[in-house]
Formats: sequence, C-alpha cells, structure tokens
Amino acid sequence: MAASAPYGRRVRIDLNADLGEGFGVWSLGDDDALLGIVSSANVACGFHAGDPSIIARVCRTAAHRGVTVGAQVSYRDLIGFGRRALPMDPSDLVSDITYQIGAVWALAQAAGTSLRYVKPHGALYNTAAVDESVADAVARAVAQAPIDGALLPILCLPGSVLARVASARGLIVVAEAFADRAYSPDGMLVPRSEPGAVIHDPAAVVARCLRLAAGDGIVAVDGTVLSVQAASICLHGDTPGAVQLGEQVRAALEAAGVTIAPFAPAPVRG
Amino acid sequence: MAASAPYGRRVRIDLNADLGEGFGVWSLGDDDALLGIVSSANVACGFHAGDPSIIARVCRTAAHRGVTVGAQVSYRDLIGFGRRALPMDPSDLVSDITYQIGAVWALAQAAGTSLRYVKPHGALYNTAAVDESVADAVARAVAQAPIDGALLPILCLPGSVLARVASARGLIVVAEAFADRAYSPDGMLVPRSEPGAVIHDPAAVVARCLRLAAGDGIVAVDGTVLSVQAASICLHGDTPGAVQLGEQVRAALEAAGVTIAPFAPAPVRG
Amino acid sequence: MAASAPYGRRVRIDLNADLGEGFGVWSLGDDDALLGIVSSANVACGFHAGDPSIIARVCRTAAHRGVTVGAQVSYRDLIGFGRRALPMDPSDLVSDITYQIGAVWALAQAAGTSLRYVKPHGALYNTAAVDESVADAVARAVAQAPIDGALLPILCLPGSVLARVASARGLIVVAEAFADRAYSPDGMLVPRSEPGAVIHDPAAVVARCLRLAAGDGIVAVDGTVLSVQAASICLHGDTPGAVQLGEQVRAALEAAGVTIAPFAPAPVRG
Amino acid sequence: MAASAPYGRRVRIDLNADLGEGFGVWSLGDDDALLGIVSSANVACGFHAGDPSIIARVCRTAAHRGVTVGAQVSYRDLIGFGRRALPMDPSDLVSDITYQIGAVWALAQAAGTSLRYVKPHGALYNTAAVDESVADAVARAVAQAPIDGALLPILCLPGSVLARVASARGLIVVAEAFADRAYSPDGMLVPRSEPGAVIHDPAAVVARCLRLAAGDGIVAVDGTVLSVQAASICLHGDTPGAVQLGEQVRAALEAAGVTIAPFAPAPVRG
Repeated sequence: MAASAPYGRRVRIDLNADLGEGFGVWSLGDDDALLGIVSSANVACGFHAGDPSIIARVCRTAAHRGVTVGAQVSYRDLIGFGRRALPMDPSDLVSDITYQIGAVWALAQAAGTSLRYVKPHGALYNTAAVDESVADAVARAVAQAPIDGALLPILCLPGSVLARVASARGLIVVAEAFADRAYSPDGMLVPRSEPGAVIHDPAAVVARCLRLAAGDGIVAVDGTVLSVQAASICLHGDTPGAVQLGEQVRAALEAAGVTIAPFAPAPVRG
Repeated sequence: MAASAPYGRRVRIDLNADLGEGFGVWSLGDDDALLGIVSSANVACGFHAGDPSIIARVCRTAAHRGVTVGAQVSYRDLIGFGRRALPMDPSDLVSDITYQIGAVWALAQAAGTSLRYVKPHGALYNTAAVDESVADAVARAVAQAPIDGALLPILCLPGSVLARVASARGLIVVAEAFADRAYSPDGMLVPRSEPGAVIHDPAAVVARCLRLAAGDGIVAVDGTVLSVQAASICLHGDTPGAVQLGEQVRAALEAAGVTIAPFAPAPVRG
Repeated sequence: MAASAPYGRRVRIDLNADLGEGFGVWSLGDDDALLGIVSSANVACGFHAGDPSIIARVCRTAAHRGVTVGAQVSYRDLIGFGRRALPMDPSDLVSDITYQIGAVWALAQAAGTSLRYVKPHGALYNTAAVDESVADAVARAVAQAPIDGALLPILCLPGSVLARVASARGLIVVAEAFADRAYSPDGMLVPRSEPGAVIHDPAAVVARCLRLAAGDGIVAVDGTVLSVQAASICLHGDTPGAVQLGEQVRAALEAAGVTIAPFAPAPVRG
Repeated sequence: MAASAPYGRRVRIDLNADLGEGFGVWSLGDDDALLGIVSSANVACGFHAGDPSIIARVCRTAAHRGVTVGAQVSYRDLIGFGRRALPMDPSDLVSDITYQIGAVWALAQAAGTSLRYVKPHGALYNTAAVDESVADAVARAVAQAPIDGALLPILCLPGSVLARVASARGLIVVAEAFADRAYSPDGMLVPRSEPGAVIHDPAAVVARCLRLAAGDGIVAVDGTVLSVQAASICLHGDTPGAVQLGEQVRAALEAAGVTIAPFAPAPVRG
C-alpha cells in the first residue's frame, strides 16, 4: 500500500500511549507491553503519577526500543491522578510544567535518549483545550524550556485552544486522534459520561486507525466524516484489554503497509 | 590586600547559602536579602522544600543579580525537611537526584540563567560524606546529568567520601567550609548536639571567613589550625540574624580586598 | 458592665483563631501567643497544614490553658494551603472530613482535652458558605462523626448555606464574625481582592469586637448596621501584628466587662 | 473436630489480612474478595496507603460482613509503602500513630462499626518487633488513644519487643502467625531476601493453618516444632493467587470444624 498510496495519503503514523503511571509500589497499565506497541511514550512526570524510578525505567526501555519520549505534564494532584481542573495562578502553572519538563528530560537523557515532545495529561489536557489562560500557560512553559536547543512540539487535540495558542507562540503543534473514543459531528469527543463514549469493538477501533493512517478522517457518531488529519493516534493503556487492542491496531496498520514511527524521532544513542 | 596578597593567597572567594526553602504558603529564611549577599545559591529542588514557583522566583532574582544557581538535591522528605537519612535503594536515589537536577535546570534556564553545580542537602550531605554507596549514588546522578554539555561540579565537604568518589568519577569537586560551625581537630564538624557546635559571635564568624579567604585554614575548637582550602563559604540562611551576619561577613571580606564571586560563573544573559 | 448589661446584651463571647498551621519545619503564626488570647483553637488537621506533632503540641497547650479545641477541616491541598476550591465528588469530601475529625480528636484526647467543634478552612469555608453540595458534605461528615457521644457544632458564617444545611440536619450551628474584615451592606465579606477588605486600624477592630460582644451588630462599609449576632469572633493569626492586635482586642473586651469564654467548654481534665 | 477437640485445642481462630492499600486511582489486592475470607481487616490509615475514600469503603464492607476493623498504622511513607524504617523522634511517631488511629476510628464509626485493634505495618512492624524505643512509641500511642472507652489490643508477633513492651503498659497483646512465611528454629521469620522465605505450596500453607488452629504450633524450616500459640493467622493479600489461597485456607479450616471468628468482635450495628 505504501508504494501505491495515492497522493495525500499517509504511509506512516505515530502511536502514542500514557506510560509510567504507577507510583511507588502501585502500578497502572503494562508499560513494558505497551512500549512494544507504541512509537511515542507520554511519560508521567511525577505530578499525577510517575516517580523518578518509574520514569527512569520507562525511559530506558523506550531508548532501547527506539520509542520517543514525551513529557506528560499535569496538575500537581497525585490523589486525583491529575483528573481535576485545579484553580491555579497561571504563572504557578507555568512553573509546575517547566519543572516537570526538566525532570523528565534529565531522566530521559540519563537513559540514553532525550525528550522530544510535551503532552498535557487529564484535566490539564481538557482545560487547555478550551481555556485560553490555561492553554497559554502550557504554551509559555514549553516555549521557555527548549531541550537540546530546540523548542518541543506539543501533542494535542486538533482545533483546540491549546493548538491555536501554541501555534501563535511559534511552537510546533502535532495533532492526535483517539483510537477508541467516539467523536461528535462537531469534532469534539463525546464526554465519557455519555453512553458510547468509548468504543469497545476492536474491529471498529482498528477501522478508525486505518482511516486515520490513510488520511481519511474520522467517522463521527452520526456518520459524519470529520476531516481530521492526525499525525499520532492515542491508544489507552490502562483499560482492560488495552495491550491486546493495541497489538491488533499495530498489526492491522502494518498489514496495510503503514509504518508505525514516531512523529519526533528519538535521538540515536551514542 | 588583593594587590599585595602573598603568593598562594586567595583574592576571591565564593559565598553560598541554601535558598528557596519555603513550600507553598510557608517561607524559611529571607531569600531576597540573601541573594544580595551570596554569589552562589543552593536552590531547594522540591524534595525537602521548594515548590516550582519558589524555585522560579529564586532563579529569576539570582539571574538578575549575577548569582550562580546550584541544585540542592535532597532525599524526598518534605515532612522531615530532608534531615533524615532515608534507607533507599541506591538506584532509586540516583533517579531522585537526576529528576531534581533536571527540574531546577529547566526553571533556571527559563529564568535566563542556568544550573552550574550540585550540592546535597541535609541528611544527604551528611550521609554522602561518610557512606560510600550514597556518595556513589550522588556522583552517578551528577555524572549522568550533564547540563549545557558539561558535567556539573559538586559542592561538598573537603575530605569527605563524596569528594573522593566524585573525583574518581571525573567530576569536579569544589570544597566548602562553614562560616559558623565549630570544627574538631580532625577536620570534622562538631555535631549540632554538642555545645558550641554553632558559632554565634559575629566577630569569630568574620575572622573565620577572612582566614578562609586568605587561605589560612580553619581554627578548630582546640586551637589547631586545619589547612582547609575552601573555594566557597557556606552561610546559614535560616537562623535568626542570618542576614545581618551575612552582610557583616561580606562587608568584612570586601573591606579586606577579597572579591566575592561565584566559583562557577552564571551564564551571561542573552 | 456585666452586671448592668441591658437585656439581650452579651456578657461573654468566644474568640477563635486558626492554629497549628505549620508543617514540619515550617511555622505560620505564633501558636503559643495566640493560645494565650483565644478561647477556641481552630486546629489544622493535616490536609492544608498541621502535622500530627504540631497538632499534638497545640492540643496540649490548649488543654493546659483551658482553650477549646476545634477541627479546622480542609480540602487536601498542602501546596495550596487549602485556599483552592477543589472539584471533588461529595462522598470523597465527606470521607476526607471525617478522617480529619477523627485524627484531631485522637490527638486532642491524648492531650487531655477533646474535640468540641468543627470549622471549615479556607476554600472549604467559602465554598460551603454558598454551595449546597459542599455544605451538605461538610454537614454529613460532622453528622456521622459524633465525639464523646454528641454531634459537634459547626462554627461558620451566619446566613451561609452551610449554616442552613447543617441546621436542617440537626446540627448546632455557631455563628462567627470577623474582627478585621470589612462587611458589605448585604452581610457578606468584602472580597480580599478589593481595597479596604481588611481593617488594619486597631481602634476600628477593637470597636468592632466591642459591638459584637454587646450584641450591637456590625457596621458595614457604607455605615449600615448589620444585626449580626455572633457567639464567636475570628481573629486572624497569621498576619503581621496579629498577636498584638489580639491582645488589644482581648484587653478591651475584658476592660468592658466581657468574659472571654469558649462557646463549647473544653472537658475538665481528669 | 470441634466437639472432640482435646483440652487446650482451639476450635476457633481469626484470619487477618492487610486491606485498603490502594491510593487514589491505584489499587492493590482485592479488598472485596478478601473481606469474604478474613475475620479481621488491617485497614491502611493513609500513611503508607489508603485514602479516606478507600478506608470508608473497606469499613463499610467490613461492617456489612461482620469483619472486625483494625488500624494498620505505619510510618508516613507513601512512596516507600511504609516499608522503610524511618529515623524519627519517638514523640513524633507517637503523634503520627495516634493521628492514624483516630482517623480510621472516625471512618469506621461512620461506617456503622468501630475500631477494635491496632497492627503496625511493614517497617514499623519489623522495627517495633526488635527496637525498644519504636515499640514503646507504638504502645504509648495505643495507650493514649482509647476507643469507645477501652484500650485497643495490639496484633503483633509473639515474642517480639513490641509484645513485651505493650504488655508491660497494660495493653492486650494478640499473637499472630503467618500462613505463608517460613520460620527459623528460633521462632523468627526467614528474611524475604533468603530463598524459601515465602511458602508457595498451597498444601503446606493449609497444613500450617490447620496446625495453628489446633494449637499445634509451627514447623520451622528445619523441622523443629515451635510452640507458637497464635490467636490470628495473617494471610497476605497482595500476592498473585492470594484470594484463591485464602479461600482454600478458610475452606480447610471450616472443614476441620474450626470457626473463623474475629479475636475482637465487631460491634453490633445499631
């Protein structure tokens, strides 16, 4: 398919998942298995999950497998797993995010790789998608934390306030789509509180991913085809069957001639 | 004195103090006043004290005043202020320290300066001074976290296990002496639990600092002169009268022709 | 004045202040001095401030001086000092508050006193004053945590949603007024963000307290007299000059023949 | 067997397990399943694991099933899961433990049951078993925190320093034995770092429990029979197969005519 792909069709796509979301004795999801599936690892930075030992371990495995490391920055909220929008002074939020980026960068570097992108987690992802001041705080933090001499791209929802604000600041914005979330006709995600918000049928998830890789957009819940162009597909890692589903997605993409590759390549180990 | 200083005499010395040791609403010491006195700021990294907003503020003021920023890495122990030697797997300690170095580096860079050295805090300072495996963990963490392409020097006690281990790993070790702590004839600090451990007489503290700047060593409690060569003098910032004492020390050194300057110059702001 | 007080006039009033708001090495306010002024101590429970050692120390001093101990329950938010309204499932909030009540009760009991009331702190105070579901969570928590066989009263803002909801659940509600906060003509506090929100003139603060003790209500910013009946006056303990101001208030009240006494007497030590 | 049990033989025994050891989004072990097996629940108190919502949930289920609630008090060490012996001032440790006892008591009471015993967790269990000052801190905390008018018994290792110290303070000490841990001939547990420390053979675990219920002691690794009399058997809940093993133990005990019952009955719900 790669050779015969018509003009405009992707022949490669990135798969990303949230990783390193344990803390101390607690684990969440199967990091090792997912690192065999994805090409980009959104590594928890210690604020919603992820202690330094876990971050180091994920970074080492990612480095070993050529998976790119990103910092999944979050509100400081271990007890709430970063899922609560915390009222914060924007300048404090900027500092919190900068701190997390630096922390994960140092561990990534020590693991023989580096940090290549930033993705907000949970409530920060959702709030930055709609709130100008939160989006601006995320963008300012990334803009003031160049890594290896370059500003990091932000992985986020296409069409979001964060995507617009970050672009306006000169940051590279990488669009992602969700493998297993239902979309409304307006391009927004169906809220998790509504029935059908999460797609459980593996065949439907695989079909979604094949369309995305082909650049054919997303079919919304009412059949509308959304012209979403996503450079990365987000797989959920902490749901039952996540690993099996991820393996199916990857296998189907590869069978269709799609190359799974990070949107921001990891540095070659010295 | 600078012009007429005999061969081997210092004409410049560094003053360092622990800064950024508040947390949230709580403060400790007068960061702003101390940043007008010292040439090197040991910035708390969030593990014993120091939240990202505090770190950012200290780094900005330090950048503005030409004070060099160092990372004062610690055991993860907010409730104990990093004063307890925590039993830890050395590899976990390495990750904890690397995380802290990266976090403060990112905030220092965002503040227009950078990170120029590492100093262990509290129990980590004391344990790394005597325990081979802890010292090795500190040295490994610093060795795996080059900043701006160079390994950071470690500010520590001359003659300590950490000094030896870090040197053996190829790290630069910078020796410090304490302005207001009594020394035993063997070169060790008199434990705080003993009477006279802390020198409260300003004249004695100033005399100590003048001797150190002149390269004349330290007078121990029994009168023995210890041939300590220290490139930096540690001022305590959280004791009553700390600021006044620091001002006296600085004024006396300058009056004696000694230049107060960081052992590792801060980068020039672009 | 006590003997000649006209019908309806108070001859006694309670003074309360927030205490135990340090954490580990950090302190906030002068607990010891304030325990010589107030009759009721709102003891931080560890969620916004206050570690068990601090709580124990405050309870012991309170027991020694006959000061009544209350639990100042809060959102779990050390970094934000409980000043942020956190989005929470109400049932989680109920559990958080119950936990705090039990924790302080055990330390109060161990100190030879007991726990006699609950007061929400910071954002929880403000939110419970206006939000039905948060107020209900506070009331449910108190209602499910009887101490020594009796339900604890809630110290709160008269006219607030919490006051209404708690009363409806059969809880005793004790009204408090603020010694140094400006009131709007509608009985609400002037927000801190507005000029004049805090009264800094000691004479005005003393006059406010004398009126409250006499049952003469509060003079709002526009001169309106609010018919507030408060059984307790809240003194702020963490502002500069707080202790001196508190001493002036207490002295003026006593000089006017008002007895300073807890609204809920502490148990007699066995 | 119950009817024909020779003089001195138990016909009832308690089964205990550590429960409520999740935190926020993280879980550990299967609380619900274990609450169908054990008669006593060692509930984490929030210092090594267990947030108030989790504690409340475990207490409610325990109340519903007639399982007795105990407080599994710990060092304050979420990141280390309470498995590290932390250097602490004993008086601080006393306050920490008292705080935890009160917190769990309040939630247990709110759940319609109460708190009936205390068991130290992890490093505190091990340290209190051998260190006089730590054992004394645990005993003092329990002695100063009577619940419902009575001092709580301490569940601990027979022959330990804690058992001796607590008895000397007039506390009831309840001895426990481990279902799946190898014992040395001197009655101590084989350290986990040694091979064979944990018994994985279900038949051997069941045989151990049947002996304990019959008062026949424990067979040590070298065949020595230790005359341990244990009123409670500790089942591990966080190991793979823990639930199945617990079900086998319970079934085998019941088949042998042994009644599984708490050593300290839960209060009858009003």
